[in-house]
Amino acid sequence: MATHTIQTDLHDFEPAPKLSIKDLNPNVIKAEFAVRGTIPMKAQELQTQLNKNPHSLPFNEITVANIGNPQELHQKPLTFARQVVSILQYPELLNRRNELTSTTPPIYNNDSFDRAEKLLNEIGGSVGAYSASQGVYGIRKTIANYITQRDLGESASPNDIFMTTGATAASSYLLSILSNGPQTGVLLPIPQYPLYTALLALHNATMLPYYLEEESGWSIDTNEIEKTIKKNAMTKGIQPKVMVIINPGNPTGSILSEDSLIKIFNIAAKYGIVIIADEVYQENLFNGNKFHSCKKVLRSLQKQFPTQYNNVQLASLHSTSKGLFGECGQRGGYMEIIGFNNDVRNLILKLACIDVCPVVTGQAMMDLMILPPKQGDQSYQLDCIERQQIHNDMLNRAKKLYDMFSHMEGIQCQKPQGAMYLFPRLLLSTKVIDEAKKFEMEPDEFYCHELLNETGICTVPGSGFGQKPNTYHLRTTFLAPGDQWINKWEKFHKAFLKRYT
Amino acid sequence: MATHTIQTDLHDFEPAPKLSIKDLNPNVIKAEFAVRGTIPMKAQELQTQLNKNPHSLPFNEITVANIGNPQELHQKPLTFARQVVSILQYPELLNRRNELTSTTPPIYNNDSFDRAEKLLNEIGGSVGAYSASQGVYGIRKTIANYITQRDLGESASPNDIFMTTGATAASSYLLSILSNGPQTGVLLPIPQYPLYTALLALHNATMLPYYLEEESGWSIDTNEIEKTIKKNAMTKGIQPKVMVIINPGNPTGSILSEDSLIKIFNIAAKYGIVIIADEVYQENLFNGNKFHSCKKVLRSLQKQFPTQYNNVQLASLHSTSKGLFGECGQRGGYMEIIGFNNDVRNLILKLACIDVCPVVTGQAMMDLMILPPKQGDQSYQLDCIERQQIHNDMLNRAKKLYDMFSHMEGIQCQKPQGAMYLFPRLLLSTKVIDEAKKFEMEPDEFYCHELLNETGICTVPGSGFGQKPNTYHLRTTFLAPGDQWINKWEKFHKAFLKRYT
Repeated sequence: MATHTIQTDLHDFEPAPKLSIKDLNPNVIKAEFAVRGTIPMKAQELQTQLNKNPHSLPFNEITVANIGNPQELHQKPLTFARQVVSILQYPELLNRRNELTSTTPPIYNNDSFDRAEKLLNEIGGSVGAYSASQGVYGIRKTIANYITQRDLGESASPNDIFMTTGATAASSYLLSILSNGPQTGVLLPIPQYPLYTALLALHNATMLPYYLEEESGWSIDTNEIEKTIKKNAMTKGIQPKVMVIINPGNPTGSILSEDSLIKIFNIAAKYGIVIIADEVYQENLFNGNKFHSCKKVLRSLQKQFPTQYNNVQLASLHSTSKGLFGECGQRGGYMEIIGFNNDVRNLILKLACIDVCPVVTGQAMMDLMILPPKQGDQSYQLDCIERQQIHNDMLNRAKKLYDMFSHMEGIQCQKPQGAMYLFPRLLLSTKVIDEAKKFEMEPDEFYCHELLNETGICTVPGSGFGQKPNTYHLRTTFLAPGDQWINKWEKFHKAFLKRYT
Repeated sequence: MATHTIQTDLHDFEPAPKLSIKDLNPNVIKAEFAVRGTIPMKAQELQTQLNKNPHSLPFNEITVANIGNPQELHQKPLTFARQVVSILQYPELLNRRNELTSTTPPIYNNDSFDRAEKLLNEIGGSVGAYSASQGVYGIRKTIANYITQRDLGESASPNDIFMTTGATAASSYLLSILSNGPQTGVLLPIPQYPLYTALLALHNATMLPYYLEEESGWSIDTNEIEKTIKKNAMTKGIQPKVMVIINPGNPTGSILSEDSLIKIFNIAAKYGIVIIADEVYQENLFNGNKFHSCKKVLRSLQKQFPTQYNNVQLASLHSTSKGLFGECGQRGGYMEIIGFNNDVRNLILKLACIDVCPVVTGQAMMDLMILPPKQGDQSYQLDCIERQQIHNDMLNRAKKLYDMFSHMEGIQCQKPQGAMYLFPRLLLSTKVIDEAKKFEMEPDEFYCHELLNETGICTVPGSGFGQKPNTYHLRTTFLAPGDQWINKWEKFHKAFLKRYT
């Protein structure tokens, strides 16, 4: 070290203190994110304890039901998609194609090579190069075609597609651009995915909650929304600028009807409210429920009533993390923006440029999710079987969990329609409520805490998503395999009720 | 469509207008990012034109010299790293290991399988699952070991490592947490990587510029910094809270001496200023220049003068995008935080949780970058050759470009010490300056614009990075292969000078 060569009085001073909480950004301080909040943090501690001492707790493992993370729970990734990305990562394999496809069974399928070649070509040769900030053009074109097909011919343009790091980055860009201080009002469904409340806190916008109607399958009451708009816009000087809808719903698992969407766009058009449509669960549908994309409904309205609806601004979000794909760790996503002025579009592009580009393999994953092998392709049959298997597994697990909740005393649960979650209501006694107070917890947080401590099942309390006052819920995924955890839960619940009657 | 079933007076209203610029977040509006700014945007347009009509311009291709994106310019990725990530994406290959390693030549090496198995184990089985928000623990442990080795035994802890989406996300987290309105002062080197000015704009903090000394190889004058601190802290009510240093420098290519770093920490300790050390180019060193990590210098100071230096707060950033790896599109990165209070640490973790997790293959890439094959491993020899080749290529290209600038009239260029850039000074005549004014351009922007239009070479004007008043520069990477573009540049420059004498 050369420190001694410097004059020694350099180091003769009174040191300043470290930063403390009062020096920090208050918006970050007030943001909360329950999905990885206190209960999941506690679960992590317990996991560490189990790793060190496997017999120190009343359970052998943590059941991760707090986050929609299918592959953590051993959902098998789709073979075709993974073959292609494997080749993208090591394009030297293209030179060994004959060897790799001619073994029995083949190590890689022929159509995996074909797709990898196409994607490499679109990407420009290497997944290790930054792509355009908006995303690889060829992939955006594929997405535009997919949307056009999904919406029965309502056309989409690659120029309106922005590839993003999961759907999270898309929400973050939009709320960053649209927030202009506390006078910016953002309509959020309650309960909601806590990403949105967190982003509102970070960007210092004001939440305008609209409560979903639990009794009618967590539906939307647009009259209530209009009341909120008028009340807040008129009396508090808050401009209702954005409305978030999550369809299929997170944490509720509900699906919005076409009529609901029409009414939502009606409000959007009347009040100039931007619609952010979180549609990441559009593939996760059960029991014949149908998904109506916002884009399609909007285009139909625009065709019939162009003057009234042509100003509507919509951003639709999608992700590789959900659906039957479940590739959460790959961080693929896109948003389609519809009807925005060029000024707004350019700001989105600017934020994308500052982040340079979304991960390129994640972009490829999006291509693979929406464009599976076609009939006649070597991978077609296996891909169909794998997708069907994942769908059936989810459906069965959802049913099993729903059946349990239906039979349990002190629990009410809406029927699963879509997504990956159930959001049962806990009818908790005043004894529970009083006991929770002692620990400075919300009553449902207390329930989740006890559930975790006694069974290792990790869920998220309803208070983390928002709920009507004096109602209590929890969100659980139905992804965990097997029956054992469900049985343990039932046993815990009975004992819990008994303890606090 | 069911629209006709709804009462028709629903659609009888006066539609609201679309959002316009006045409704949007002014902080996003004022942010600028020159690396993907007007010149690169123009280059994209020209590329589109070339694709449509190859002979419509005075050149056949765009030479991308605006961004450090080596693999876009055909730098070959390292074989070992790509083999491993290829296996991570398709773990079925583990079951075919014998076949894949026994061909001549082998399709995959044995140590690639070994590493993939180790990583899969650490990751928990699938790169498609979300990891811990802070990053995979096992990978953070590997990084901590790497840092300890780099810093000759100064220990590092996995708990202080946060994996991030490139180094960009790390900077973004830090400046988001530390910014508390315009009274937050952030010392930025001028010239600087425009990510930092963009983030300051987004978070509404105040830039406190400190000018680098071009004549002495873009060195830091700490006396100037101290003057800035006193002047601003005392007269304008701005709290100097953060200082960004970029070492090796971007866009300057300079390297900070140990003495400079000691003086920087001296200021940090005296005034309680957080140091954000952007050290992403730490592997890109030329001509025997040595990199001194901030962490190592700080620890040495703390050993000698604990009272004075124990409060210093440092965040050191690294990335898979640079070095010899150049895996930009994989979006791997980490930061090590040192000396922060727990409050601050928890806020960083909260922001990481809101983003759920950095892409898992990017995390694996970081492991592979810092832990290459060891002597005796099957991949060792090739890996050494490949790394050496990339280093030599960069060095040769840097030299060639530097030689050209050294011989050119009206250009002064500091010798390349590190990073991927040269930042030559343009001595522009008043004729150029007047001409630029006509087009409402900065004089260096005008030069870059003309260079692009006549040769297809895309660079970034110095005005995008900041520079002393009445000086003009440009940043060019030296990554583009071949001599032809260098010759074209020389020819252009001569003609340009002649035109404007």
